[in-house]
Amino acid sequence: MEKQYALGLDYGTLSVRGILLDMDTGEEAAVESFEYPHKVLSKRLPDGTSIPHEYALAVPQDYLEGLGKVVRSLLKNHEVKPEQIRGIGMDVTSASVIPVNEEGIAMSMVPGFESHPHSYIKLWKHHGAKEYALRMERTARARGEEWLSLVGGNISCEMFIPKTLETQEEDPEVYERCSTFLEVGDWLTWYMTGTCTRSASMAGCNSYYRRGIGYPSEDFFQAMNPEAEPVTKKYKGTFIALGKRAGYLTEKAAEVMGLIPGIPVASPMVDSHASVVGAGADRVGDMTAVIGTSACYLMNSHTGEGIPGIYSSVYEAHIPDLFGYEGGQSCVGECLDWFVKNCVPASYEKEAKEQGISIHGLLQDKIKDMKPEDWKIMALDWWNGVRSPLMRPELTGVMVGLTIHTKPEEIYRALLESLCFGARIIIDTFYEAGHPVERLFATGGIPGKSPLMMQMLADICGIEIQVCESRLASARGSAIMGAAVSDVTEQTARALKDWIHKLGSPMEAAYYPNYQRRDIYEERYRQYRRLADIFSQQGLVRQEDEIR
Amino acid sequence: MEKQYALGLDYGTLSVRGILLDMDTGEEAAVESFEYPHKVLSKRLPDGTSIPHEYALAVPQDYLEGLGKVVRSLLKNHEVKPEQIRGIGMDVTSASVIPVNEEGIAMSMVPGFESHPHSYIKLWKHHGAKEYALRMERTARARGEEWLSLVGGNISCEMFIPKTLETQEEDPEVYERCSTFLEVGDWLTWYMTGTCTRSASMAGCNSYYRRGIGYPSEDFFQAMNPEAEPVTKKYKGTFIALGKRAGYLTEKAAEVMGLIPGIPVASPMVDSHASVVGAGADRVGDMTAVIGTSACYLMNSHTGEGIPGIYSSVYEAHIPDLFGYEGGQSCVGECLDWFVKNCVPASYEKEAKEQGISIHGLLQDKIKDMKPEDWKIMALDWWNGVRSPLMRPELTGVMVGLTIHTKPEEIYRALLESLCFGARIIIDTFYEAGHPVERLFATGGIPGKSPLMMQMLADICGIEIQVCESRLASARGSAIMGAAVSDVTEQTARALKDWIHKLGSPMEAAYYPNYQRRDIYEERYRQYRRLADIFSQQGLVRQEDEIR
Repeated sequence: MEKQYALGLDYGTLSVRGILLDMDTGEEAAVESFEYPHKVLSKRLPDGTSIPHEYALAVPQDYLEGLGKVVRSLLKNHEVKPEQIRGIGMDVTSASVIPVNEEGIAMSMVPGFESHPHSYIKLWKHHGAKEYALRMERTARARGEEWLSLVGGNISCEMFIPKTLETQEEDPEVYERCSTFLEVGDWLTWYMTGTCTRSASMAGCNSYYRRGIGYPSEDFFQAMNPEAEPVTKKYKGTFIALGKRAGYLTEKAAEVMGLIPGIPVASPMVDSHASVVGAGADRVGDMTAVIGTSACYLMNSHTGEGIPGIYSSVYEAHIPDLFGYEGGQSCVGECLDWFVKNCVPASYEKEAKEQGISIHGLLQDKIKDMKPEDWKIMALDWWNGVRSPLMRPELTGVMVGLTIHTKPEEIYRALLESLCFGARIIIDTFYEAGHPVERLFATGGIPGKSPLMMQMLADICGIEIQVCESRLASARGSAIMGAAVSDVTEQTARALKDWIHKLGSPMEAAYYPNYQRRDIYEERYRQYRRLADIFSQQGLVRQEDEIR
Repeated sequence: MEKQYALGLDYGTLSVRGILLDMDTGEEAAVESFEYPHKVLSKRLPDGTSIPHEYALAVPQDYLEGLGKVVRSLLKNHEVKPEQIRGIGMDVTSASVIPVNEEGIAMSMVPGFESHPHSYIKLWKHHGAKEYALRMERTARARGEEWLSLVGGNISCEMFIPKTLETQEEDPEVYERCSTFLEVGDWLTWYMTGTCTRSASMAGCNSYYRRGIGYPSEDFFQAMNPEAEPVTKKYKGTFIALGKRAGYLTEKAAEVMGLIPGIPVASPMVDSHASVVGAGADRVGDMTAVIGTSACYLMNSHTGEGIPGIYSSVYEAHIPDLFGYEGGQSCVGECLDWFVKNCVPASYEKEAKEQGISIHGLLQDKIKDMKPEDWKIMALDWWNGVRSPLMRPELTGVMVGLTIHTKPEEIYRALLESLCFGARIIIDTFYEAGHPVERLFATGGIPGKSPLMMQMLADICGIEIQVCESRLASARGSAIMGAAVSDVTEQTARALKDWIHKLGSPMEAAYYPNYQRRDIYEERYRQYRRLADIFSQQGLVRQEDEIR
């Protein structure tokens, strides 16, 4: 019999990746990607309009172009026939907000709106909505809103609702003219299926939507701003639960993608959450760590009470029938890349080049034999603020212990270590809230590339770490969802879990804690926490920005 | 009449510089220098013997070779005749300790001692004597030694006595065999004059010697170590007061130097202190800031009570009849150079090269238009520990406010600023002790090169800064001392001051505080002090080394 494939599409910040997953063997049979031509807009719109420095926008056309190109390449380059594709799943960066008109056309593509920054996709790292997040948080706290505790007690400006409030207040034209604000995943699903739906999982994770209760109430929005209509009036579409079909591929979309109409399309997921599925982390107590530019720590649980500093607790966020918690670090690879780009001298660049290795590789080589007595620097890994558990985006990175003898690799080591300490705090936060981590699956760009960091993480956290073989755990997770919806008769949680079991990624490496080093790290971790306590006290030092 | 010159010799850490100062016009008629072939020994002795990493030694032959070569070049390259040289003055890095035999031969030059690290010159930055400094401090405190308060209440391992105690305990062979420990300045003076003398000014600054009282008592040393003889038994030589003749050039030395025997030689000074003379800073309330690799802040006063954190208060340390205070920062240029060497990416090196400027110049260009709102980073300038006022060599540099948007020049700006804050604390310490700074003269390597830093210093300290035209204020000060001793009839304080007036350096630039910026800096200075308070609390974070 001819092989059957599930298509998984993983929309990241700079590119979209697609895979074809063999529904029988779990083999990642084909992988293709497409880089968005416009990348992230942080200074200007395509027409030259300048935008504030905290903005991070994307161009909708890039996403559509990627859809067609990636899928067509998957088929063409790997000799797969359209009829072999049996289901489609998709994941997209979290809380990427897009306003669309009544036909599902992105507002920035509607003539006359090309110069409106708010008509574009607001990426997860768009920080223009700090003020609105703060307002929401104050109002929610004052009103004792129950949902606030489920998102860790803080509201991040990176979430969905603040970004839409920002548009409502700052660009009434876009607000009035748009029909609805969507997650980009829902928008692309609409594009594929012809129907406006909303992923319950994404809405839960990013918009405080709760099954059976809904979004924060209209009263809440009225309390925040009596002048304005509740922004949820612009949140249209039918909710689709995790792992369920959002619809079937339309003729038009099938043509764009080179596929056959009628293929089932699964409700989209947040990219990091899809990697839980991709990693096969389906048990209670499983934590999936997605470690790349930033890091997410995704935890499965039977219960869903709020944990301070853990910014979402959502029923069926990633695994059917279970609550999914999410904590995170706002930069990991980005911090290390910042260092390599800004703080490594020419002599090191030359050395790396001569050895034919990356600068990261060179620095890791230099530190691999460093002994604890050479660990003189302590850092706070707050280069992009703090997500879990402090929820303080305005905090900044700290380095202590610098001397005229300090070498770049020593700073790099301290950064790695502090990033692991940052992960440890999150794991401790779960533990203290009664959710011990039983298994830790590592995915994302870093785990496969840095055995050194993985070992450090195992030592610091005292937990065995399994590294997923799949380099595309999110795309794989989406493909698994695509496989699940291909089954026309069964869509139960049990059936979905069977697919996750069957197609979850194999592991390629395991790291076990070294208890000798662990003792040393314990002491340093105490120092890290002490430093963190000091620098998280409000007003100690003028931080970049006091508001969120 | 033929021009008459005073010769000034300035022995630094890496080279010796000589100048010929026109005794009539004050013109620096000739300048020559010589780099020590062995530089600073920090890993191995010349014979390959390895040495501990905290050691910083120098090779006596280098100093002798420099004496001959520099003076001969001064005459030869500038067509000056030996008989035009009328007096010689000399300054040397502080507390550079050398053990010598009864003939004044450096112990490392005595056969059989080549492999003994303790037989070499221990430079100011030799940090092998931390343990002995700590012992001295504890004993002095327990005994209520009066001199302790005159040195700021702390004993630095960089001072003379701890370095000799180190030799006494760690290399009895060198200790037994040597006749005396000398300041390198006194050793070179012996070499020139044939007589063993000691500069009262250097002994006051570096060995707690007080006129009329002497060194710390034998009882003190016995209390510290009843087993050992008081190390001052090995401090021989007749004391010579500031600005007095130590002797006359011998035939042998004259031949080495290409001069005529019988030229008067002045008692040597600490290099930084000679720059007070060179700057012509002879009034009460004058502060001379010598800003280079590290920085000294030298203050003239009528009174000489101890000021906590100001590490010396010495009668006639640099100006006759006045007390001289000295406070200091343990790294300034060294910190900036560390940054440029270790933390600036290849792209910046390329840019600097293309523009034909130094990396320091490039970074300063990039920050010159930065507005206060762009000043996001706060640093503690403790890259080499802290001298004044904390006297805590074990403290380390701190940086706060780092983000993934941070550019190298922003870090550099924060370093510059924190170095100026470090200076401000010292000025405040003097002020609070009743010694307001009336005039500030800046000398050393940095003031003439960095108008940006000088303006920042003026803004931060709220004091007008005069920058000496002379790039060799110390050598010039030594030459002034040479001129003073050339006068066979007069050696009064008054006569010496007249020479200082006459030959002190002209000023090349003045920087006035900008009061608008000053307000902003005041706020940031408060934050700096708060940070400093936090990080100077013992045990906050494991620092490199808890002992001095």
